[in-house]
Formats: sequence, structure tokens, C-alpha cells
Amino acid sequence: MEMSYRVDLFTLLGADAAVLNDSVAIEQCLRHVVEAAGFHFIDSISHQFQPQGISTVAILEESHIAAHTWPEKGSAYITLTTCAQPEDSFVEKASDIIADVFAAQSVNHREIL
Amino acid sequence: MEMSYRVDLFTLLGADAAVLNDSVAIEQCLRHVVEAAGFHFIDSISHQFQPQGISTVAILEESHIAAHTWPEKGSAYITLTTCAQPEDSFVEKASDIIADVFAAQSVNHREIL
Repeated sequence: MEMSYRVDLFTLLGADAAVLNDSVAIEQCLRHVVEAAGFHFIDSISHQFQPQGISTVAILEESHIAAHTWPEKGSAYITLTTCAQPEDSFVEKASDIIADVFAAQSVNHREIL
Repeated sequence: MEMSYRVDLFTLLGADAAVLNDSVAIEQCLRHVVEAAGFHFIDSISHQFQPQGISTVAILEESHIAAHTWPEKGSAYITLTTCAQPEDSFVEKASDIIADVFAAQSVNHREIL
């Protein structure tokens, strides 16, 4: 079996430190990004780093999504890893959702693999 | 801030169906792969798909690792996503660990980004 893999990497700069340290907001953002892909959220866990920073990983029906944040730097990255095909408008919708939730100055997207 | 990202993708073929459907074995395998990188496991969740298949995602101090399995196909993929630098021998050690745990006929590795 030959499968094709895809990782969508979103990097955020100049983002709001309070949101970057808010696991509820981050999980909600990931849920909206997953919906924008036409994918399905199953379950997630978050970890609060000390003194700050959050990692959230979530299992999807279509593999997984994760966010890692550095509030002290205003930065974060989000990866969606899948064997499935996101909806056509996914990158634009997801970038808008992420920029909005985190009040980010920039959201860069790269599709890899 | 400019960060460098790395995704190590391991794809398995011809693997043991029973192990591919065993969330305890899969989590243990991921812990050993993380140790081989010199990284640190924090917390994980698994989901059992019906009729078969497991997804496990784990938060690390150095970002995350995940496994997605298809017992009916004897296949799986594992991704380690990080901004950190794994130890030099990581790819060889991890490939050996994965091949051993899953009794896989082949373990292919690709480093992306």
C-alpha cells in the first residue's frame, strides 16, 4: 500500500501572549481549523509548560493536529498531519481562523511532503 | 524569531496486525522512539477505531509524536514533529525499535522540512 502524506505547517508571529497561554482557546481554534479542512475531531490533550507555553495535540478521524506555543515570544506553530485531502479552501480559511484567534501579525503556511 | 522545524516520518509495511491494534504496545514503542531521540515524553492519548486501528498522539517537551495504524493493511505511520535536534543515531535506532515492536517487513524513513 502506498499512501500519500501531507503536513500543513502554520507558523505564527506577533501573536497575543494571553491567547498563546490559554489551552481552552487553543483547543477551540484547532477544532475550527479541523472543521475548515472538512475533518473530524475525536479527542485532545493539552500540557501547560512552566512558566508559560501550551502544547495541545488532538486525534482526528483523519490523523492528527497539534499546536505548540511560546507566549514569551508571541509565536506558535500548528501542524495538521493527514493522509486525507482537506477541502479546497482549507489553507485560506485556516490561516484566517488562526490569525483571528491569536491576533497574530503574521501567519505563514507551508504544505510539506 | 525564525525557528527550524523537522518532521521524521516512518512508514511501516508488512507489520503484525495484533500489535498494530494494541494501544499499550504502540504507546510503549513511541516512548522508546522518544528516548532514542534524547527527547522527553509528557503525556499521551489513544483512540481505538472500529473495527480496528489505533491513533496515539503524545506531547513531548520537544513538541509531539504520533502513530496511526491500519491493522487490516499491516501498515502504519509514525511522525515525530519538533523544533529540537534529535541525537545523531536517532533515525537508525528508531527504525530498529519500530521494526522490532511491529515485526514490520519494512520501515521507511523520511525527514521532511
